[in-house]
Amino acid sequence: MNKEALLTEEKTLDPQDWSKLNELGHRMLDDLFYYLETTRQRPVYKKPSKDAIASMRQSLPELPQGATGVYEDFFANVLPYNTNNIHPRFWAWVQGGGSPFGMLADMLASGMNANVSIGDSMPMYVEKQVLDWSKEMMGYPATASGLLLSGASLANITALIVARHHANREIKTKGLQAISGPMTVYGSAETHNCVIKGVEVIGIGSDNFRKVPVDADYRICVDELRRMIEEDRAAGCQPFCIVGNAGTVNTGAIDPLDELAVIAKEQNLWLHIDGAFGAIPKLLPEFASALKGLELADSLSFDFHKWMYVNYEAACVLIRDPQLHREAFTTAVNYLTLHERGLSAGPDAFNNLGMELSRGFKALKIWMLLKQNGLETYRTLIRQNLQQAQYLAEQIQLHPELELLAPVPLNIVCYRYNPGNCDADLNKGNKEILMRLHEQGIAAPSYTVLNGHYAIRAAITNHRSRFEDFELLVNETLRIGNEVFGRH
Amino acid sequence: MNKEALLTEEKTLDPQDWSKLNELGHRMLDDLFYYLETTRQRPVYKKPSKDAIASMRQSLPELPQGATGVYEDFFANVLPYNTNNIHPRFWAWVQGGGSPFGMLADMLASGMNANVSIGDSMPMYVEKQVLDWSKEMMGYPATASGLLLSGASLANITALIVARHHANREIKTKGLQAISGPMTVYGSAETHNCVIKGVEVIGIGSDNFRKVPVDADYRICVDELRRMIEEDRAAGCQPFCIVGNAGTVNTGAIDPLDELAVIAKEQNLWLHIDGAFGAIPKLLPEFASALKGLELADSLSFDFHKWMYVNYEAACVLIRDPQLHREAFTTAVNYLTLHERGLSAGPDAFNNLGMELSRGFKALKIWMLLKQNGLETYRTLIRQNLQQAQYLAEQIQLHPELELLAPVPLNIVCYRYNPGNCDADLNKGNKEILMRLHEQGIAAPSYTVLNGHYAIRAAITNHRSRFEDFELLVNETLRIGNEVFGRH
Ligand SMILES: Cc1ncc(COP(=O)(O)O)c(C=O)c1O
Ligand SMILES: Cc1ncc(COP(=O)(O)O)c(C=O)c1O
Repeated sequence: MNKEALLTEEKTLDPQDWSKLNELGHRMLDDLFYYLETTRQRPVYKKPSKDAIASMRQSLPELPQGATGVYEDFFANVLPYNTNNIHPRFWAWVQGGGSPFGMLADMLASGMNANVSIGDSMPMYVEKQVLDWSKEMMGYPATASGLLLSGASLANITALIVARHHANREIKTKGLQAISGPMTVYGSAETHNCVIKGVEVIGIGSDNFRKVPVDADYRICVDELRRMIEEDRAAGCQPFCIVGNAGTVNTGAIDPLDELAVIAKEQNLWLHIDGAFGAIPKLLPEFASALKGLELADSLSFDFHKWMYVNYEAACVLIRDPQLHREAFTTAVNYLTLHERGLSAGPDAFNNLGMELSRGFKALKIWMLLKQNGLETYRTLIRQNLQQAQYLAEQIQLHPELELLAPVPLNIVCYRYNPGNCDADLNKGNKEILMRLHEQGIAAPSYTVLNGHYAIRAAITNHRSRFEDFELLVNETLRIGNEVFGRH
Repeated sequence: MNKEALLTEEKTLDPQDWSKLNELGHRMLDDLFYYLETTRQRPVYKKPSKDAIASMRQSLPELPQGATGVYEDFFANVLPYNTNNIHPRFWAWVQGGGSPFGMLADMLASGMNANVSIGDSMPMYVEKQVLDWSKEMMGYPATASGLLLSGASLANITALIVARHHANREIKTKGLQAISGPMTVYGSAETHNCVIKGVEVIGIGSDNFRKVPVDADYRICVDELRRMIEEDRAAGCQPFCIVGNAGTVNTGAIDPLDELAVIAKEQNLWLHIDGAFGAIPKLLPEFASALKGLELADSLSFDFHKWMYVNYEAACVLIRDPQLHREAFTTAVNYLTLHERGLSAGPDAFNNLGMELSRGFKALKIWMLLKQNGLETYRTLIRQNLQQAQYLAEQIQLHPELELLAPVPLNIVCYRYNPGNCDADLNKGNKEILMRLHEQGIAAPSYTVLNGHYAIRAAITNHRSRFEDFELLVNETLRIGNEVFGRH
């Protein structure tokens, strides 16, 4: 091979002119800061324009388009049509709003480009520290194990895999087909569908997820749970896991976690708690009673990107038994074995604790944000959201045309416009109200269906919301409701 | 509730003083640009100092520490001890180096904070476009489906779930325990362990992953494969999936993919191809023959964060049959049903195509980088890495003290120091050489074991490497090897 010829050809993705790209970077930073600072001044929702969508449809670029042109394309066609969960009146699904410091931390993480899986390097220790803090937050023992993940969905699946391993350590090698009698999982009818998807993913099958009825407050009926477990055992099933909800997605209901812990112990079942957002008030002393038992679970999932307002993606799973956690995921391979020294030494590899090998440096933003703000700040913000939910519920109850559709134990408020004595289709009408709230860029709650009633649903995990935003929501729901239902 | 009292209390995570945080942001940007521009001047590896590790061990912060202090902590204790896959002489495992423009794109994505799962918003369309480009890159039909993920590990698991669903659509609801006779998966003995982990995760059990022997070039023996499938069928097993390797992790071997496609068709099995890095040369016409059949697979995984040099995390799975893909993951839930208008309209939700609900805006960096550079640039860089691998192999063969341990069909070079006629333990000695290469900050290849031989292994997915870097590796291996083996 002609080395000289090759040498002259050497290319890289690094810029020829660092200062020019650096200048563009500063422009981006200023644009984004302006964008975040002025969020409140823009509508919460703006449908992507036909032109913007059309601008996407380009064939795979053959030639370089250059950094500046690409950024301008982004600025014109992507940024204006954000999902906009950063907006103070975004309360759809359950989405956090991120923060500018979180954005900067993500820039640092992406620049370092660390693959936080294996290696004696600092990103590994940062993640370990964040996991230690996560245990502290949740009242988990320091000896527990854990992992950062993209969301509660993967966190729940990870926990279910450990639960399955706990039930029968042969499944890992022999498969579920070697098991006689279906293995069954229990959770309330309000359990998030990602848990049921997880039950499907790991091969148990969704029919073997037993939906336990809920009471009027959407909390699992523990007597029913006990009865179903026993019935299943009698029928030859192998119950192995109870999933408790710390905050259901529809209404924020918190299952009686301490009672679930008792049943799990009594029945020798794994207790997993899905606390995607609802585990977070564990930070507040006033929730000690409502969340009692959370710290007793065998495993626990929660999101940093929801009610801790960390930029996407950031979630955590904690597993009480570190040995079992590791055993459920470890496979020995030559090219990944640790060495005593050098780059390949260091803490136990994270890929021994989950489904992923390559993993980004999600830990950095969590570490930086927790330090930046301190728990004190989070307590204030979480309380603020809780009070806003109560405030919204009160306002709804003050107006005879509005109907609160579920209790508000946490930060989720479900309501509808219901003028009473009305022949119109309330479901259809409320759906129309929601669409107009979006289309007019006023507010972005989302919806659910409760006992057959279409509900407008505000999930408040938003550090930018003010009390006046909820007044606006109420007033605009009334205004649009009157229009839709022809009551002027 | 006393609204006035509450109003005065309102807090947010947004800064009080935007310009001050903005200033810090600019400082971070400049620091990171300097850091990236000067990477080559620093050692490739630096063990985290005791002080830096000790500085981590703080209890959960109660009080705010402020943005600047936190950044300074990062700068002093985290940044200097990066895993350092951004370095020109990092060739460990298979890790890409990212790029400064990728870092900026990640900053934008994190600022927008989009949850790219559901909603009529532009990030959804950007991901769809990136998926369309991915199909184009791989020669997949435009009608195929796909999803961006954190890595090839999750991409492989996602594909295995669809393969399982293809084999038997009842598993999703009834579970694997309803199946009689073990379901079996086939792949070469060189298949990446994340595939075997995937087989465990989805409940099939690793014993039911059949490791098919490889030939001298580490490629799957297709005759053996056929024989094993038939033997299993005769024994009452249910073969359902073949996993082909486009680039094995140990040596970069490419299985005869077209032959696998024929067998899969003939045997009515799903063909999945793990092309984590090895699928990427599909962009080069000169690989048309070596990668023939890649485009015929039922599903295909590849990473953008490895040989497309995209910042972590970024991977893709493509699934030929979009209906089947969706069916394997969809569960109907009220709170996530699409509407016709407003925020909740838009393209089909991505959570219908995978395990995750919340998903960050990984698509943005890929979209921006593909546009910035164009395929032309990637072809040049991929060819450069391929030539560097050949060059390194040649240099190794030129030196009698060095031994090339495997063919170099792609970008992975496995070798060892072997002075010949030597009583010393070659495995131990070569491990020592590798550790010193790391500890002295010279170069960071990693290792594997081939036929019982400890191999120093350079995986070249690095756009910053120059030919001179490989000369240094060779010379330093010789120097250290002579030291370790006492040959001065
Ligand atoms: C109770 C609950 N569990 C799990 C999830 C899924 O979490 P993620 O979107 O982070 O995967 C959600 C999302 O809203 C949720 O509310
Ligand atoms: C062939 C192969 N498959 C899969 C993987 C796993 O990919 P990831 O680390 O992106 O999950 C790797 C990683 O090196 C690989 O080389």
